[in-house]
Amino acid sequence: MNKNKDPLPSWHDGKVKQQIIDFIDRVTNKESDDFVAIEDRIATFDNDGTLWVEKPLLAQLAFYKRELLDAPVLAKVSFIHRIANWLKAALLNVFDLLRMLLAYFYSGLTTDEYREKVESWIKRAKHPRYKTQYTNLTYQPMIEVLNYFEEHGFKNYIVSGGTANFIRPWAEQVYNIPVNRIIGSSVKTRLGKRDGKLAVKLEPIPFSFEYRSGKVLGIERRLAKRPIAAFGNSLGDVDMLRWTRTNKHSLCVLIHHTDHKREYKYSPDPFYHFGKSTLSYAQELKWQVVDMKNDWRIIFNFERLR
Amino acid sequence: MNKNKDPLPSWHDGKVKQQIIDFIDRVTNKESDDFVAIEDRIATFDNDGTLWVEKPLLAQLAFYKRELLDAPVLAKVSFIHRIANWLKAALLNVFDLLRMLLAYFYSGLTTDEYREKVESWIKRAKHPRYKTQYTNLTYQPMIEVLNYFEEHGFKNYIVSGGTANFIRPWAEQVYNIPVNRIIGSSVKTRLGKRDGKLAVKLEPIPFSFEYRSGKVLGIERRLAKRPIAAFGNSLGDVDMLRWTRTNKHSLCVLIHHTDHKREYKYSPDPFYHFGKSTLSYAQELKWQVVDMKNDWRIIFNFERLR
Repeated sequence: MNKNKDPLPSWHDGKVKQQIIDFIDRVTNKESDDFVAIEDRIATFDNDGTLWVEKPLLAQLAFYKRELLDAPVLAKVSFIHRIANWLKAALLNVFDLLRMLLAYFYSGLTTDEYREKVESWIKRAKHPRYKTQYTNLTYQPMIEVLNYFEEHGFKNYIVSGGTANFIRPWAEQVYNIPVNRIIGSSVKTRLGKRDGKLAVKLEPIPFSFEYRSGKVLGIERRLAKRPIAAFGNSLGDVDMLRWTRTNKHSLCVLIHHTDHKREYKYSPDPFYHFGKSTLSYAQELKWQVVDMKNDWRIIFNFERLR
Repeated sequence: MNKNKDPLPSWHDGKVKQQIIDFIDRVTNKESDDFVAIEDRIATFDNDGTLWVEKPLLAQLAFYKRELLDAPVLAKVSFIHRIANWLKAALLNVFDLLRMLLAYFYSGLTTDEYREKVESWIKRAKHPRYKTQYTNLTYQPMIEVLNYFEEHGFKNYIVSGGTANFIRPWAEQVYNIPVNRIIGSSVKTRLGKRDGKLAVKLEPIPFSFEYRSGKVLGIERRLAKRPIAAFGNSLGDVDMLRWTRTNKHSLCVLIHHTDHKREYKYSPDPFYHFGKSTLSYAQELKWQVVDMKNDWRIIFNFERLR
């Protein structure tokens, strides 16, 4: 590899870029005290808001919204009835809504049928603001980070509060991350039959929720190792970054959405959150904070073509 | 690779060996109608009784037995009390016993502490009959199969009713299968603290049980792909082999324990099983059945030294 080639051309030169490059140099240099064996070079990445756009609506919610709009009237009425019932019982928040949507849409579908629905949606859906496919809305600077890590012997994992079933159909093509490295939320499943053949069916029962501490538990359950690098953008990623920080050598990066012109500007914390803020954690535990407006030369690959 | 070199030297020439070799030739030959792209070359292997000895006692149960013998008197009394209570309520079977043991031994331990216990046990424990470490009791013909598959672009996975936490500490060294390819049963976990530092703690609550249909669900949850090859030895593996058989091209192998002199002789089914037997499934679905006595030249690597 050409040592002089900039591995992160979409990043402005600055502290965060330098820290990422220094980290890779340290952990891959056999002479360094910080050298990490190749089998322990694990990096975990949140997906929504870290690798691609999550505003104005999480892609997975946009997918369910489409499904709902396409549903027969009776299904819609039944769904609205459920929402009404549910509003009586609980304060609406996006994660409970996601859970309810999962329950509604997953029930009875086979995993193959769900995969086909996602594949079909991701090909034709357009983002309301950028008028392009969601897979064109990955962050180019983060794609460069994924490649840079991969080239240096890292295994990249996605750890998402979204479901693994939603991410796997397109992640290998978009991020070069294979299906067995997608760690995501899941619903219960059962082995049944479809058209006389064995099939795995989705049940409307949450099984795991890879959000906040659930991200750490999901990583530990599948890898039994701690990542040495982690990237996130919100309160949901704080525990994963804290967990990564318990390593002797680690790189923890928080993507801060500061650019309302090119993308969106918002806080890492949901408005109803009380307690220590994500940015306070970042400061206290010395995470690198990416200021999207000032650290990223381009955000999306299509900006190059302009 | 030398085409003339026997890839499976510990196997006697015969139908099963030939079928394995033919299968690998077919799925890796680009000219063949049965060619399978490298990313879909997934092989799954049961562990106990398929890759290593499971008699007279599952290694994981031997581990718990040792833990129990080493436990303080009060813990033993409490444990015996629990067994007694539990016997009142249910018919004893080995899987319920395993579940209870998990619940008993996992509670409060961190995943790191559990890993250390397993690492320490696997180094010093000796099998009662062979008087050697359990890791010397892997089946040499199956080690050759793992290597043969790996060399032909396959990703090998272990799918075990035993817990992933028990297998991961030694599987990479013994089978050359990395931790992220161990799919096994698990207990619930939570993020807590040990000595002021973040730690994942084991809870005495079963989370997933990778046995019978649980093996299929575990594979689907992590890979969202169907294996094209699967190896098992018992009723617990029937659903995994049936699932694999739904592929257009597949190799399903049942290891039949027929050699009481060199190893053990026993049925693939537990004595209390009713319904279709594992061997009937094998016949009906055209699985390859390994007759250990007649198909395997040696069973353990140490036989070579004799």
